Amino acid sequence: MPVNLTAPDPATLSPVPGVRIGTAMAGVRKPNRRDVTVMTLAEGSAVAGVFTLNRFCAAPVQLCREHLAGGTGVRAIVINTGNANAGTGEDGLVRARRTCIALARQLEIAPEQVLPFSTGVIMETLPVERIEAGLPAALADLKEDNWALAAEGIMTTDTLPKAASRQVRIGGRTVTVTGISKGAGMIRPNMATMLGFVATDAVVAPALLQPLVKEAADASFNRITIDGDTSTNDSFVLIATRQAGHAEITALDSAEGQALREAVIAVSQQLAQAIVRDGEGATKFITVRIDGGRTEAECRLAAYAIAHSPLVKTAFFASDPNLGRILAAVGYAGIDDLDQGLIDLFLDDVHVVVQGGRHPDYQEADGQRVMKQSEITVRVDLHRGDASATVWTCDLSHDYVSINADYRS
Amino acid sequence: MPVNLTAPDPATLSPVPGVRIGTAMAGVRKPNRRDVTVMTLAEGSAVAGVFTLNRFCAAPVQLCREHLAGGTGVRAIVINTGNANAGTGEDGLVRARRTCIALARQLEIAPEQVLPFSTGVIMETLPVERIEAGLPAALADLKEDNWALAAEGIMTTDTLPKAASRQVRIGGRTVTVTGISKGAGMIRPNMATMLGFVATDAVVAPALLQPLVKEAADASFNRITIDGDTSTNDSFVLIATRQAGHAEITALDSAEGQALREAVIAVSQQLAQAIVRDGEGATKFITVRIDGGRTEAECRLAAYAIAHSPLVKTAFFASDPNLGRILAAVGYAGIDDLDQGLIDLFLDDVHVVVQGGRHPDYQEADGQRVMKQSEITVRVDLHRGDASATVWTCDLSHDYVSINADYRS
Repeated sequence: MPVNLTAPDPATLSPVPGVRIGTAMAGVRKPNRRDVTVMTLAEGSAVAGVFTLNRFCAAPVQLCREHLAGGTGVRAIVINTGNANAGTGEDGLVRARRTCIALARQLEIAPEQVLPFSTGVIMETLPVERIEAGLPAALADLKEDNWALAAEGIMTTDTLPKAASRQVRIGGRTVTVTGISKGAGMIRPNMATMLGFVATDAVVAPALLQPLVKEAADASFNRITIDGDTSTNDSFVLIATRQAGHAEITALDSAEGQALREAVIAVSQQLAQAIVRDGEGATKFITVRIDGGRTEAECRLAAYAIAHSPLVKTAFFASDPNLGRILAAVGYAGIDDLDQGLIDLFLDDVHVVVQGGRHPDYQEADGQRVMKQSEITVRVDLHRGDASATVWTCDLSHDYVSINADYRS
Repeated sequence: MPVNLTAPDPATLSPVPGVRIGTAMAGVRKPNRRDVTVMTLAEGSAVAGVFTLNRFCAAPVQLCREHLAGGTGVRAIVINTGNANAGTGEDGLVRARRTCIALARQLEIAPEQVLPFSTGVIMETLPVERIEAGLPAALADLKEDNWALAAEGIMTTDTLPKAASRQVRIGGRTVTVTGISKGAGMIRPNMATMLGFVATDAVVAPALLQPLVKEAADASFNRITIDGDTSTNDSFVLIATRQAGHAEITALDSAEGQALREAVIAVSQQLAQAIVRDGEGATKFITVRIDGGRTEAECRLAAYAIAHSPLVKTAFFASDPNLGRILAAVGYAGIDDLDQGLIDLFLDDVHVVVQGGRHPDYQEADGQRVMKQSEITVRVDLHRGDASATVWTCDLSHDYVSINADYRS
């Protein structure tokens, strides 16, 4: 039961000139699922990505890093669900390479020009022959306006596809930014999310793409958490086909660069928040904002301590204003010299805690009223500086346990 | 449904000469609950404690630290359940002091000779007048063999009382070590557990008590986790009444010191493990052992990453050998230069992963067999050094969510 999220209307997803998409049902793990997605990118496209910091990163993540570093120009992306190809050792790398080779052969490009992505169960052998067998169907399906199908094609435990699109005017031209993402568990991205792909036709200098993808990730996918587990396969990729016809953007702080940044960040945030809204078992969407920290880093520590606490998350599920649990989480967040006597806590507009103790005017009924909402903002003011940080999370429900206790969902 | 844990047989809990215990039903939060416990300590007793590192520590924890530092000699302990007196600001301190003053007056000692402990709901006003009113009944009940009642008297969401006792021969005398503890949620002790009290009549130099309580905590209460939440009230106290009649122990590494250490650590470990066995919703007791680390600290990082992962914990609940989740947790534990290609994973005697990939002989049925047990050891060898660390945890079940989603349990 996703929180205030609906399937994207395909008509609202503007195609990105230069990006064609096809999907196939290859039976990677289960039959009759759209489980292989291919994207082809026009010549001259620039691509940058950020990937999981999990040391046990998956074989495809290792190949993505290698191929992006090689600088031969990415021309295709292949994504499979049903198997993460992680914890698979050397054999996993061989199978990920085979996927690239098979797609490269059919597109008449080099294997190093393919980025492979896998998501699904960890520590099982990738059935690469099924992916290979599915590629012709995906290629036969290639179309510019297949973004909605691609959003479906990368789903695992997601209950809804996730896509976002927006257009901006740059240099007198309409520039499109369209993207897709997937969750829905093992979500505490660290430099990237499970899978996110955002494409634009903006004519942007290739060297700007890496800082832009990093900035967008830090403002979106790196600000969400569902269960605190950082996946082995997190990947977030930004593609620029550079076909919009305006003068090249050579600085992100120019007026044109700003317009592009804002559009990319807005699409990325919408995709990241969609992952939380469709988090496993989620019934509430929670914004946690910490103000008054000395550094952004310590604000993030406190925000994540709240967002990861199973006690806080079950209280949200129960609509129980058991708000001492939030204070406890701030207290163990790891800010060593924190003075509890300075702290304010607000639940939306309700002032719950002042100077570390219950606000004299706080009424349980007011807390209860906010806790019953499907969207809640927790705001803590540390009163020790000017830094802030925001993260987005969901509650912890019976359904989270059910979904993850199911045998190999 | 505690895991292989039963209520202690009162006959097995040896009294500690010099410690008398009384309990009362004071109606702190609910009627007809044994919710106030008093311990009196003979003159000459030595007391040391370790307390939560949560910056939002409760008022009674602040007073305990103050009273222990004062060095006037602790003569009494008072524990209430039903209210944690945390997140209560200055007023909370005033109320904790009132508890000490009331007990001190009746025992004719100084308020600074009383250590107060509170456990229960956070951010509600301590009904100190009810505790004061309950003290005479608790004092009328004072007896040396009341340990089993004390174990009951400190329970909150625990389903069973927790106590342990053992006797050793030191210097030709029988020395007793008896203790009690409580859990059962908000458990990721950091220097101490929710509440643990261990007493001995050993004649030990008072200066040795602080290193001994620290060592015992590090080997027991600081090695358990249920939900990763560090409480505001964690306290672990070691009492030596020094009445056993043998020559004073002046060094912990002497033969007599070793005998005492072993007994104190054994009792502490049994009490700490009992908290996990009775963890909220627990159905399995999991030992996580990391070998082959460069430092104990990095072994602990990996062990806690596994023990805190909701995905790993739900897999244990489901008896699902979805063991890639364990690898993923090791990968994001924060060991930056970890080489996944070196890692071995064992589930009890089953060799699951070799060199970072699935062991060729590993059969799902073998993993399944172990996962169905109520006691499981996960062992990971990092193959990069000689350090090891062990932590104990439980699974994450529907009942954990139910218990914590209940309105103010």
